Amino acid sequence: HAQAMSAEEAAALRAELAALKAKVQTLEDRLDAATAPAAAPSGAAGAVTPAAAPVTAAAAPAKPGPDIAWKGAPEIKTADGWSFKPRGRIQLDLASIDAPPGVTDTHGGLATEFRRVYLGVDGKIPGGISYRVEVDVANSSVELTDVYLTYGTGPLSITAGQIKPFWSLEEMTSDLFTSFAERAAFTQAFGFERRVGLSGQYKGKALLVQGGVFGDNANDLLSDSDNSVSVDGRVVWMPSFGDTQLHLGASAHWRKANDGPSAVRYAARPFVHTTNSRLVDTGTFTATSERGLGLEGALIAGPFHVASEGFWQTARRPGLADPTFFGGYAEVGYVLTRGDRRGYKDGSFDRLAPSRPITAGGPGAIEINARYDHLDLSDAGIAGGRQRTLGVAVVWAPIPYLRLTANYGHLMYDDAAIGSTSGDRNYSADAFGLRTQIDF
Amino acid sequence: HAQAMSAEEAAALRAELAALKAKVQTLEDRLDAATAPAAAPSGAAGAVTPAAAPVTAAAAPAKPGPDIAWKGAPEIKTADGWSFKPRGRIQLDLASIDAPPGVTDTHGGLATEFRRVYLGVDGKIPGGISYRVEVDVANSSVELTDVYLTYGTGPLSITAGQIKPFWSLEEMTSDLFTSFAERAAFTQAFGFERRVGLSGQYKGKALLVQGGVFGDNANDLLSDSDNSVSVDGRVVWMPSFGDTQLHLGASAHWRKANDGPSAVRYAARPFVHTTNSRLVDTGTFTATSERGLGLEGALIAGPFHVASEGFWQTARRPGLADPTFFGGYAEVGYVLTRGDRRGYKDGSFDRLAPSRPITAGGPGAIEINARYDHLDLSDAGIAGGRQRTLGVAVVWAPIPYLRLTANYGHLMYDDAAIGSTSGDRNYSADAFGLRTQIDF
Amino acid sequence: HAQAMSAEEAAALRAELAALKAKVQTLEDRLDAATAPAAAPSGAAGAVTPAAAPVTAAAAPAKPGPDIAWKGAPEIKTADGWSFKPRGRIQLDLASIDAPPGVTDTHGGLATEFRRVYLGVDGKIPGGISYRVEVDVANSSVELTDVYLTYGTGPLSITAGQIKPFWSLEEMTSDLFTSFAERAAFTQAFGFERRVGLSGQYKGKALLVQGGVFGDNANDLLSDSDNSVSVDGRVVWMPSFGDTQLHLGASAHWRKANDGPSAVRYAARPFVHTTNSRLVDTGTFTATSERGLGLEGALIAGPFHVASEGFWQTARRPGLADPTFFGGYAEVGYVLTRGDRRGYKDGSFDRLAPSRPITAGGPGAIEINARYDHLDLSDAGIAGGRQRTLGVAVVWAPIPYLRLTANYGHLMYDDAAIGSTSGDRNYSADAFGLRTQIDF
Repeated sequence: HAQAMSAEEAAALRAELAALKAKVQTLEDRLDAATAPAAAPSGAAGAVTPAAAPVTAAAAPAKPGPDIAWKGAPEIKTADGWSFKPRGRIQLDLASIDAPPGVTDTHGGLATEFRRVYLGVDGKIPGGISYRVEVDVANSSVELTDVYLTYGTGPLSITAGQIKPFWSLEEMTSDLFTSFAERAAFTQAFGFERRVGLSGQYKGKALLVQGGVFGDNANDLLSDSDNSVSVDGRVVWMPSFGDTQLHLGASAHWRKANDGPSAVRYAARPFVHTTNSRLVDTGTFTATSERGLGLEGALIAGPFHVASEGFWQTARRPGLADPTFFGGYAEVGYVLTRGDRRGYKDGSFDRLAPSRPITAGGPGAIEINARYDHLDLSDAGIAGGRQRTLGVAVVWAPIPYLRLTANYGHLMYDDAAIGSTSGDRNYSADAFGLRTQIDF
Repeated sequence: HAQAMSAEEAAALRAELAALKAKVQTLEDRLDAATAPAAAPSGAAGAVTPAAAPVTAAAAPAKPGPDIAWKGAPEIKTADGWSFKPRGRIQLDLASIDAPPGVTDTHGGLATEFRRVYLGVDGKIPGGISYRVEVDVANSSVELTDVYLTYGTGPLSITAGQIKPFWSLEEMTSDLFTSFAERAAFTQAFGFERRVGLSGQYKGKALLVQGGVFGDNANDLLSDSDNSVSVDGRVVWMPSFGDTQLHLGASAHWRKANDGPSAVRYAARPFVHTTNSRLVDTGTFTATSERGLGLEGALIAGPFHVASEGFWQTARRPGLADPTFFGGYAEVGYVLTRGDRRGYKDGSFDRLAPSRPITAGGPGAIEINARYDHLDLSDAGIAGGRQRTLGVAVVWAPIPYLRLTANYGHLMYDDAAIGSTSGDRNYSADAFGLRTQIDF
Repeated sequence: HAQAMSAEEAAALRAELAALKAKVQTLEDRLDAATAPAAAPSGAAGAVTPAAAPVTAAAAPAKPGPDIAWKGAPEIKTADGWSFKPRGRIQLDLASIDAPPGVTDTHGGLATEFRRVYLGVDGKIPGGISYRVEVDVANSSVELTDVYLTYGTGPLSITAGQIKPFWSLEEMTSDLFTSFAERAAFTQAFGFERRVGLSGQYKGKALLVQGGVFGDNANDLLSDSDNSVSVDGRVVWMPSFGDTQLHLGASAHWRKANDGPSAVRYAARPFVHTTNSRLVDTGTFTATSERGLGLEGALIAGPFHVASEGFWQTARRPGLADPTFFGGYAEVGYVLTRGDRRGYKDGSFDRLAPSRPITAGGPGAIEINARYDHLDLSDAGIAGGRQRTLGVAVVWAPIPYLRLTANYGHLMYDDAAIGSTSGDRNYSADAFGLRTQIDF
C-alpha cells in the first residue's frame, strides 16, 4: 500500500537538500582553498553529477594551498611551482686498519668518525629555477657542499654555483648510494672535489651531455690565488631495454694552474677514511696544468650489476717529463632481496630502495658487491707507489632512507710512499669499515 | 499525472538525507580541525542555510591547524600566533678589477666568490615575541648574522641580541635590496657591523625612532676584552604622499674602547668584494673612543628614486688631534618596467618585486641606478687617502626572490694607501661585478 | 491534507541526492588523501549512518597526508610514522663577576655572550627509528651537539652517535631546564661532554637503565689519537606517587686514556660562563685512566622540589698516588605560580611550562631555587683548590618556550688555583648572571 508524501514533507525535504547542497559546496570551496594535495582533477566532482540534475558542481577556482610530500623529510610545495625541502645526512663510521708497523698512524684498534653530517635545503622557484644549499658540519667546521642555482624548463639546463665538475660515474653517484663506504681510490687521488663554476647540461631520454667552466672549491676562493680555471665535460649514453640499464660514458678535464706553476699532490687513503695516512702518495710537486680522461661503463640487469671505470690523470711539469697516473676499478654486485635492484638515474647510480622494507615485515634490501680497485701513482720519475685493493661489501637498507654498509678490503702495495718500520715498501694491509647512514 | 511517492520511498529518502547530513557535518568538523587556511568566516556556512531549514550549520569550534604561507620558503603559522619560516640566501659574485700594477692582489682576470650563504630561521611566539637566528656560512666558517629576540605588540618594541646598530639607510637596507652589489664605501670603512645589545624602537606611521646600547660583534665577545660599549640612535621621518615616499633621517653613535685605548682602522675595498686590498686605509692607530654622525635623505616617486647620505666618523686619540673622516654618496635610480617601483619599508629600502614576473610572461623588474660615492680617510695627520667612485648598476629581478645585479665602478684615488709599482698614489681603477642572488 | 509527490519530483530529488552523495564521497576521499590531522576515527562516519540506510559510508582508504603539530616549531608528521621538526635555541647571557684584583680576566663591568645558539632537526622514521642532528654555532664555529640514531619500539632502545654518556641528573637535564643558568661546578670540572658511542637503554615505568661504550667527542675524533674508550652506565629509580615524583640514581664511569698515559685537567669557571678564568684548577697532569661514581637524589612534590648529587672522580696516575676529587650540590626550589611545577621526564628534569602563560593573561611560571654547590679539586698532592658556592636563582617562563633566568652566586675559595694580586688564595667572589632563552 503506497501512501502519498505530503507537500509539506516534500518541501521540507527539498529545503534540507538545498541547505545540504549549499553546505557541500562551501566545504568544497574550503577544500579547494586549503588543500592542494586534495586537488582532484577538476572534472571529477562534476563527472558524478547527472547532467539533468540541478546541482552546480563547479567550485570557485580558489588558489590551492601548499602540499606536503615526504622524501625522508617533508617537501612542501605549491601548485604554482614553489617547493622547499630540508636536506641532511649522517654517516657514522667505525673502521679498522691492520697494516705493518709504522705504516699508519692508527693501526690496530678501532676508530670512529662522523664521515659526513650534512644540513641544507632544496628549493624550487616557479619559472624553472631550482637551488640547493648544503653544508657539511662533520668536522666541527662548515664546508660548503652543493650550493647552486639551476635554470631549465626542458632537457637543457644551466647551473651556476658549486657542484661536482662531471668527473666519473663513481664520483657523480652520491656518497649515499655508492657500492662501498668509500669511493674508488682514483677519485680521491686525483683530487675530485666540488668547484664553483658555470655549467650546462642536456638530459635526453638516453643521452646526457654535461660541460662547464670551473674555478676552485668555495673554500679556496677565499685565497687571493683564485685564478685556476678548468674546463670539464662528460657524455653518457644510458639506454634502457626492459629490465636492463646500460651506462657508457666518457669525461675529459683540463685545468690550468694559478697564474704560474702551482703545487699538486696525488695521494689516497687506504680503503677507509678514519686514517690520515696516505700509503700511495706522489708528494707535492710543481705543475702548470692538469689533464684528465675518464671512461665509464656499467650495466644493471635485474638484481645484477657490473661497473668499471678507468681514469688517466696527466700533470704538465715545466721542464720535466709529464707523468700520467692511472686509476680504475671493476665491480660486480647482486641484490639478494626479491624485487629489488640497484637504482639508476640520470647518469649515476641511485638509491637502493627496498620493495619490502622492515616496516612492512620484509627484509629490507640487501646487496653484495665485490670490487677490484687499482691505483698507480708512479710515472715519469715520480714514485708514488701502487695500490691494489680487493674489496667486498654488504649493503643493507632496512628502509629507504636508512642504510648500513659493512665492507672489507685487502690492500696490496708496491713501492708504497710510506715504508714499514723494517723499511719494507711492498706489503699488504687489511681494512674493515662499518657505516651507519641516514639521509633526508 | 502525478503518482504518489510511497511511504517506504519517502522514508528511505529521509534516511539518506539524515545520513548525508551527518556525513557532511563530520566532514565539516574534520575540515575545521585540520585546515586552518580554509577557515571560512564562521557565518559563511550558515548564511546559505535557509532559516526555515532544520539543518544545524554550526560546526563544533575545533582548533584550526597550521597554515602555510609562502615567502620564498614556506612560513608555517597557527591561528594563535606561532609562526616558523626557514631563511636563507645565496649571493654568487663574479668580479674583476683593473688597477695599476702593484695595487691590488688580483688584477686582470676574473674572481668568483660566494659573497653570502645564509641559513637560518624566523619565528613568532604568541604574546608579541619574535626571533631570528641566521648564520653566514659563505666563508667555510660560521658567522652569526641576525640573532635576536624582539618583544612588542604595538608601535613600541624591544630587542635583545645581535642586530645592526641603526647606522644608516644604506646599512639598514638588507644587502638583498641595495642599489649596487656592495654598499657605499663609508659603511665598510667605518666598521659598520652587527653587534650584541639591547635596543628599543618606536615605529609610527611616519616616524621611526631607534636606539640602543651595544657591545661587540658576537665573534668578538669571545675575546675577554668584551668591554666596549656603544650607544647608538637613529630617527627617521618617512611620510608618504600618494605615490611618493619621503625619507629623512639622522643617526648618532658613540663607542668607548675597551678599558683603555684600543686599535682602530678605517679602510675600504675598491667597489667589489673579491679583493682583499684596501686602497684607502688609515692603517691601525690608537683611539679611546669613536663618534659617528649620519644624515640620510631619500625620495621614491613612482619609478624614480634619489638617495643621499653623509657620515662623519671621529676617532678620539689620546694626546693627539682627533681625525674626522667623511664618507657619503648620492644616487639616482629608475625602474624601467611598467608598474614596478623600488620597495620601501620601515626606514629602509625593500624588495624590488616585479609586477609582471617572467613566470607570468612579463619582463620581471628592471632598475638602473647611478651613484657618486665619496670617501675621505685623510685628516689630522692621518693619510688614509681619498676614494671617489662613479658607479652604474642594472638590477634585474625576473621573479621576486631571484635577482641579478651587474655593476661597474670607475674609481679615482688621491693619496691612496697602496701605491702602484711606479710609486704613484694618484690613479684610477675600474671594477666590474656581477651578482646572482636568491633568497628565501 | 496530504498531496502526493509527483514521480518527476521524487526522481529529481533522488537524482539530487545521488549527486550529493557522490560529491560528499568525493570530498571525503579528498579529505582522507589530504588531511591526516583530520583523520577521524574510522568508525565515526559510519556510526552516524543508520544501519538501514543505503548510504555506503566507507571511504576508499586513501593514504592520509602529513599533520603539523607545534612544539615551539612545527613538527610535520605522517600517519605511517615519519616526522620532522626543526630544533634550535638561543641563550643570551649578561654576567658580571666581582673578585679580588688579579683573579679573573674580566672583573668589574658586565660581559655578554651568546651562551648557546643551536640549530638542528629531529626526525622519526617508520620502524622505530629516530634521529637528531644539532649543532652549536654560538662561538662562530660549528660544534656538533646531539647527533645520533636511535632504534627501539618498546622500552628497550639502542643509540649510535654522539650523546651525553649518562653522567648525572644535572648533566642529563637539558641546559634549557636547569635550576641555574650554569650547571653544578663538578659537571664542568670533571669534563662531562657529549661523546660518540653505542649505547642501550631500558625505560620502564619507574626504572631507567642506561649504558654504553663511548669514544671521544666528535671534535676530538679528528685527531688520530682517537683510541680512548669509556664504559658508562646509569640506573634511575623514578616512581611517582600521586603528585610526588621521586628520583634516586647512580652512575659509574670508567675511561681508559689513549694508547698510553695522556693529559687530564680538572677545572671550573666561577658560577658564570663569560669568563675564561678557572679559579679552581688541577692544572694538567698525566693519567692512564679515569673512574667516576655518581649518586643522584631528587623529589618533586607539588610546587616544591629538592635535589642533591655527589660525584667522585678518580684519576689513575702511573707511579703516583691516585687523586679522588669530589663535587656535589644540594638544592631546594619552589614554583610560586599556582598550578605549576617543575617538569620531570625519563630520569631528568623537564620544562617549566606555565599553566597560565602571559598570552592567557596569566603570570607565566615563576620558580625560585637555592643551592649549595661544592667542588674540591685538591687530593693526593694535587692542589686544585676548593670552591663552595651559595646560589639563588629566579626562573620566569612567561610562555612555555621563552625563559629568563636571573641568578646570583657567592663563591668561597680555599687554596684557589689563581691568587689575587696580593697573593691571597683564600678569598670570596660574587657573580651575577641573567639569561634570556628561547627554544624550539
